[in-house]
Amino acid sequence: MIPKNQKMLDLVEKEHKILDHGFIRIIDFMGGDEAIVQAARVSYGSGTKAVSTDKALINYLVKHKHTSPLEMCEIKLHLKMPIFVARQWIRHRTASINEYSARYSVLSNEYYIPELNRIQKQSKDNKQGSGEPLSPELANKVKNLLEEDAKKCYEDYEFFLSDEVNFARELARMNLNLNYYTEFYWKIDLHNFLHFINLRAHPHAQYEIRVYAEKMLEIAKTWCPFATDAFENYVMNAKTFSKTQIEVIKKMIKGEIVEQENSGLSKRDFNDLDIFTK
Amino acid sequence: MIPKNQKMLDLVEKEHKILDHGFIRIIDFMGGDEAIVQAARVSYGSGTKAVSTDKALINYLVKHKHTSPLEMCEIKLHLKMPIFVARQWIRHRTASINEYSARYSVLSNEYYIPELNRIQKQSKDNKQGSGEPLSPELANKVKNLLEEDAKKCYEDYEFFLSDEVNFARELARMNLNLNYYTEFYWKIDLHNFLHFINLRAHPHAQYEIRVYAEKMLEIAKTWCPFATDAFENYVMNAKTFSKTQIEVIKKMIKGEIVEQENSGLSKRDFNDLDIFTK
Amino acid sequence: MIPKNQKMLDLVEKEHKILDHGFIRIIDFMGGDEAIVQAARVSYGSGTKAVSTDKALINYLVKHKHTSPLEMCEIKLHLKMPIFVARQWIRHRTASINEYSARYSVLSNEYYIPELNRIQKQSKDNKQGSGEPLSPELANKVKNLLEEDAKKCYEDYEFFLSDEVNFARELARMNLNLNYYTEFYWKIDLHNFLHFINLRAHPHAQYEIRVYAEKMLEIAKTWCPFATDAFENYVMNAKTFSKTQIEVIKKMIKGEIVEQENSGLSKRDFNDLDIFTK
Amino acid sequence: MIPKNQKMLDLVEKEHKILDHGFIRIIDFMGGDEAIVQAARVSYGSGTKAVSTDKALINYLVKHKHTSPLEMCEIKLHLKMPIFVARQWIRHRTASINEYSARYSVLSNEYYIPELNRIQKQSKDNKQGSGEPLSPELANKVKNLLEEDAKKCYEDYEFFLSDEVNFARELARMNLNLNYYTEFYWKIDLHNFLHFINLRAHPHAQYEIRVYAEKMLEIAKTWCPFATDAFENYVMNAKTFSKTQIEVIKKMIKGEIVEQENSGLSKRDFNDLDIFTK
Repeated sequence: MIPKNQKMLDLVEKEHKILDHGFIRIIDFMGGDEAIVQAARVSYGSGTKAVSTDKALINYLVKHKHTSPLEMCEIKLHLKMPIFVARQWIRHRTASINEYSARYSVLSNEYYIPELNRIQKQSKDNKQGSGEPLSPELANKVKNLLEEDAKKCYEDYEFFLSDEVNFARELARMNLNLNYYTEFYWKIDLHNFLHFINLRAHPHAQYEIRVYAEKMLEIAKTWCPFATDAFENYVMNAKTFSKTQIEVIKKMIKGEIVEQENSGLSKRDFNDLDIFTK
Repeated sequence: MIPKNQKMLDLVEKEHKILDHGFIRIIDFMGGDEAIVQAARVSYGSGTKAVSTDKALINYLVKHKHTSPLEMCEIKLHLKMPIFVARQWIRHRTASINEYSARYSVLSNEYYIPELNRIQKQSKDNKQGSGEPLSPELANKVKNLLEEDAKKCYEDYEFFLSDEVNFARELARMNLNLNYYTEFYWKIDLHNFLHFINLRAHPHAQYEIRVYAEKMLEIAKTWCPFATDAFENYVMNAKTFSKTQIEVIKKMIKGEIVEQENSGLSKRDFNDLDIFTK
Repeated sequence: MIPKNQKMLDLVEKEHKILDHGFIRIIDFMGGDEAIVQAARVSYGSGTKAVSTDKALINYLVKHKHTSPLEMCEIKLHLKMPIFVARQWIRHRTASINEYSARYSVLSNEYYIPELNRIQKQSKDNKQGSGEPLSPELANKVKNLLEEDAKKCYEDYEFFLSDEVNFARELARMNLNLNYYTEFYWKIDLHNFLHFINLRAHPHAQYEIRVYAEKMLEIAKTWCPFATDAFENYVMNAKTFSKTQIEVIKKMIKGEIVEQENSGLSKRDFNDLDIFTK
Repeated sequence: MIPKNQKMLDLVEKEHKILDHGFIRIIDFMGGDEAIVQAARVSYGSGTKAVSTDKALINYLVKHKHTSPLEMCEIKLHLKMPIFVARQWIRHRTASINEYSARYSVLSNEYYIPELNRIQKQSKDNKQGSGEPLSPELANKVKNLLEEDAKKCYEDYEFFLSDEVNFARELARMNLNLNYYTEFYWKIDLHNFLHFINLRAHPHAQYEIRVYAEKMLEIAKTWCPFATDAFENYVMNAKTFSKTQIEVIKKMIKGEIVEQENSGLSKRDFNDLDIFTK
């Protein structure tokens, strides 16, 4: 067996704090860069000999989306996060999960309250995003109401579960707010782990899931440095251009001046090309 | 193409009301009993000729867990349910889903309040279940608090989203309770649809998901009557007995009197055999 | 229910011949462009109102890889192909399948023999590809040997299954060659159907699977014209450039002359940029 | 991190020979009985305290099909098997795989020839099975033809790949027989590993896949002894009886004599009950 990556072993069981009560804790892992190479060399046989180094081979695999060797690495995390974040998380179907059940057990009195500067306005240009912070007075008002409501709902939840009432746990839990914390074990392979990071560390992802994804990216760097490096260059920080956008880039390289109107591109597609000129 | 089942076509777009504000609405479906038979006959070729009728063939497939032909049928539903129910629902990973997003849009002021006789005590023998109803006074007290908290939380949610505050939707939503309704489109194949029903129409499933599963069982009967009949007989109402339980059943049939102590079975395993004698 | 696309209905049950004995036959389908829009509008709620047309909405979804609404469409095909092609095909795990079983039934005497101009040399620059045709004499020699071996193996297979020998079918089948034809039913959603096409209609895919994928692309155009159009522009004919490649493109647009040596790019990554200048 | 199971560590990298040229080799593994318990206790919280021992908890999980904690264990194998076996193997979709590619590389001259006593007749009562051995003369004749054909096909494959012809590998491979060996890396979680064993170690499974599944059962016993014990008792050696069969068993226990004709059961369903009386 390939010896385990010592830096990664050192991270096992360490709790990385996220948000006000959340965390990521690595429980176990299997494989690493060497396991990717090992699997790829079985798969491509002598065909991989031309690619001399492990790093170059991994770059090749990631660039060309030959992702099956990346599935040969596996990680298991213990996660704690607000329920509204968990609801997005669980949309990733290619993972194994064991969540704390509020049918069986009592949820703790822990809820997420954003920092004041995270109490932000609805974004003007992003239907699903947030923008500038609210004024300090408004932000405080929002914060106080969030706290007041969470407390009142938990108080009633506790009352429901008290000996006096003895309301069934499976029903009482419905009174809690979506900012209450839940926790679960989550096991996923490296390919799907990086795919998760790609979607959830994206600037358009909600801040409250992004902070988890960013920590996971750091973990990935320790776990599989070559694969994560390739992922950052060829996937996460890469850009895809449509057939029609490529035609316009060609013209730009030839020195032609292209206006949106005569580019054949929609405004959005045209604006994507700003990254080359701004 | 096999002609579509007319009784099922008649159900399309009809809304089946569930709980106080929820529903199941069939959007579309593909295949039926004939599609199962068609696929099985390709798969087993002349090997299926011995099984003379379609009904017998489907019984054979379901009994022996040859489930791949059942995957050849597909159904798409529009569902509305409380968030705490949706959280269980979404644990079934082999389905496609598009959920209403409270990051993009405003959630309606609709929350689930159980009927008075559903406001039940924690079950004594089932860690995750509910038992007898609470006394009328306590039940009313619980109901009123559930309503009070849901209303207050929505009131503040509306305030958050008002022009005055303009708090980002992706954050404001965290103030809502788990009994608020969500809705989604959900597409799944017949094999996984029946598997869902098997787990969620089970007496140990929570009432609030069971009522959906029971309606889905009715839909399945209209959609694929032979397959659903086989499923009820060989899966849903079947019982599995362990190797050691089978040894005890043998003795019981021979007329031997078996006590738990000398049966080699745990108490729970021994009690399973009550169904034969009580 | 949204009325079915008539052009697509006309294709159902038609057999599209592929290779010498293979085919693609549409058995059934569910949904289309309208079903994608319908699901997306549930998902994003009022957030989608800004995107005025169905075509623009689908472009947006495909460009930004919001693929879940595409999973709401489903297609079922009857396929016949050589076993060595089926072996690649079945690596796509997100599909349902019922294959003809040679344990139960006798395989027909049908095997794939490439056309003479497809009897090609090993590619020089592509470890897994093929290049120029062999000389006519060599090509004929290869063809004759392929036929001779396939015939001899089938002759012995028939002898094995004869009344005289009565060798078990599950064992006799092992004597057949990988160019023998198999057939199966295959059901998949649109998202995964297009993903399959993206990989298998790619110029680097083997010709014998590419011809199936190309026909499937035609089918997709009839089935979901908007989604397929978006897919061709934003996925199939799009190019992805790494972070470091984008830096070089920027320089090229500014009119700088960039050589591979000082570009910071590997040779392969540098050569990708040839599409802009050649 | 839970310390690794030493007996299992001792198995890593050991090659278990299967059939004439095949093998199973454990590459790596993650988790064990303790990891199942750890995940279950997070999931059910205080609800699991009543179940005092790890063994009792695992029995409970396996018996009631609470399989998600079993997904928390993962194993990676290096496998070598005949292609016709691999074709069945790969139908299990919930695994990761990297197979040796004959597009890239040359397949070795290794093919499966059954032992003489495995050269068996078509089963009389099992459409997909095999029965008594052929006569020694016929068995030898079959064996010789299998060898002759495999040799001839490989000889031509080698000729195709020779410098003289230089036929593309992706095409030349189609001349090989289905009894040629392939190899792959295969990663799967414990729940799906046991499910595979349940189907493929079954007496109705083909002998050539059963021998792999039986070795995998041994490996499972070393890896997760409690879970495998529970699996053998509650799943593998358990029997499921339909609703109508249970009614008949009830009568049998009451001492009634039940004939098939008046049992309400089909012949097959009635014969299942023979295990109690024979």
